[in-house]
Amino acid sequence: MKVMKGKQSLEFENPPYLKGWSSVVGEKEGEGPLGQAFDQVIDDPLFGEETWELAEGRFMRQAALLAIQKAEITKNQVRYAFAGDLLEQIMATSFGIKDLEIPLFGLYGACSTAGESISLASMTVAAGYADHALALASSHIGSAEKQFRFPLEYGSQRPLSATWTVTGAGGFVISKEKSPIKVRGITTGKIVDYGVKDSMNMGACMAPAAAEVIYQHFNDFAMTPDDYDAIYTGDLGEVGKEILIKLLKDNGYDISKVHGDCGIEIYQDETQDTHAGGSGCACSAVVLSSMITRKMINGGWKRVLFVPTGALLSKTSFNEGETVPGIAHGVLLEREEL
Amino acid sequence: MKVMKGKQSLEFENPPYLKGWSSVVGEKEGEGPLGQAFDQVIDDPLFGEETWELAEGRFMRQAALLAIQKAEITKNQVRYAFAGDLLEQIMATSFGIKDLEIPLFGLYGACSTAGESISLASMTVAAGYADHALALASSHIGSAEKQFRFPLEYGSQRPLSATWTVTGAGGFVISKEKSPIKVRGITTGKIVDYGVKDSMNMGACMAPAAAEVIYQHFNDFAMTPDDYDAIYTGDLGEVGKEILIKLLKDNGYDISKVHGDCGIEIYQDETQDTHAGGSGCACSAVVLSSMITRKMINGGWKRVLFVPTGALLSKTSFNEGETVPGIAHGVLLEREEL
Repeated sequence: MKVMKGKQSLEFENPPYLKGWSSVVGEKEGEGPLGQAFDQVIDDPLFGEETWELAEGRFMRQAALLAIQKAEITKNQVRYAFAGDLLEQIMATSFGIKDLEIPLFGLYGACSTAGESISLASMTVAAGYADHALALASSHIGSAEKQFRFPLEYGSQRPLSATWTVTGAGGFVISKEKSPIKVRGITTGKIVDYGVKDSMNMGACMAPAAAEVIYQHFNDFAMTPDDYDAIYTGDLGEVGKEILIKLLKDNGYDISKVHGDCGIEIYQDETQDTHAGGSGCACSAVVLSSMITRKMINGGWKRVLFVPTGALLSKTSFNEGETVPGIAHGVLLEREEL
Repeated sequence: MKVMKGKQSLEFENPPYLKGWSSVVGEKEGEGPLGQAFDQVIDDPLFGEETWELAEGRFMRQAALLAIQKAEITKNQVRYAFAGDLLEQIMATSFGIKDLEIPLFGLYGACSTAGESISLASMTVAAGYADHALALASSHIGSAEKQFRFPLEYGSQRPLSATWTVTGAGGFVISKEKSPIKVRGITTGKIVDYGVKDSMNMGACMAPAAAEVIYQHFNDFAMTPDDYDAIYTGDLGEVGKEILIKLLKDNGYDISKVHGDCGIEIYQDETQDTHAGGSGCACSAVVLSSMITRKMINGGWKRVLFVPTGALLSKTSFNEGETVPGIAHGVLLEREEL
């Protein structure tokens, strides 16, 4: 068997497993449709810290510790951490998990970080470089609005195409030890730039990148939408979802029956005033570590393609009038009958 | 043979090779002591672009294309790129290499990025996930000063402990095909925080992280300073170098005879007014891809430990009064007699 699959994918010879996973979220997420599925809801948005940035780091730290605990291992058994967040110089990661003292590969994949970190942790474990590796991603509405738009305190209005940044963090222990969910393979995305410049419509910025990586995934694995119980994008929201489905239909694949979007699932716009959906690195991470993994363990789902999506913008790129390119990373998860 | 070596290292069973490497730098770097060793010196600090950020991206793109060309492969043969820079949301990487259309793992490791990207690219190739992978790192004095301190246009004064951000980018094609330099193994760093808060003295912030990873490397590989022709840290500068040597001496290793620092080599303070030395992701990257690789090819060096060092700070962490933790990533390079 050849591990390199098609043009852009890997299919692991010795697939690694999701051994433990965690979802730690804020109050608003706890009040949403998935509220009951999360491991921990933290009502204090500052999580006992003095700044939004340190608060986000605290969410990540908590997700890390909980994932390790749920994997029934100890911190010292984790050989590598792969982690990232949305902030400049990934400040939440650096300050959040520095005390864990785990060798760290810091990542920046915007909101695709959960896909990037799980991909790299899976590659690491499948290659025999570690028995256990940790994948982490976090975001926070307070730190993200301050970073990319305006401080929350300004009370700025948001257009209906805007998404709401998820406060929280997800953690995944990827392990060589068998568990009910295995990482069969990955499809790694390229940067895709369709020239969209509206940072309040990130779904439109990211949908082309998601379409490209899903299209390539089908080709590389010689599968079609019918072969999946679900295909979950990260945070396209209502606007991006439509574009994604159309782009893939134009290229011969109809994913409308199996597609879901983590950003759409996590809030209920009618009552929560979140507009197009949730976003942020934590969005896809905590939906995977709650609802999606539950459906795979108890709900009969046998094969899921998880595709977190990232919008590659910064305050500076926005102010300098640049476009918002997208990236997406696909992870192929399968139920393992033990 | 076991690929996991000691606590924090890997020793590859099928070591990957540095197949091609490139150094593209700015005018000041071209005028420094290593000027003749660089592949390309670009006199225009904007490299034909309109902003410092896009200029930095252009340096990275050029380094990527040149490394691919020097490796005698084509862009389409590169299965993955591992790349990062210092800017918020790694803007130089996103905009610099988006047109290359190579599946990308975006990294943030501050000035340790060259070590992080070469480590991950090496892990990827050694595991059979790619025949060729690209490792990239860039920095730019204009974008970095604007990002972390004040725009260059303000003409702010700098203390003698400050370093000068290197303008440029280094690229490395890591390959399964034999070449004169192999990556025997890696030692991956943890975040180390000694509580230093002075962002104008980054050498002091990073030296403890470098000391820890070098100490662990010696232990994991059961080697001592005498076993190396050179041990090169990234950008500790004169102040950090002293601290590093003392910290390791206190722990039983005297590296003073074999230690060099890329930041000290790249400028001549007396004539270039750069103070404690060079810094930035490009600093270690371009010194490796010029002087260090030359000494390994023609100068008789058979074993080098390359340890880029990163200071984990952001404008926000600085303004909020946080410390500046450090991280360092070790790459063990050996001359291969073909």
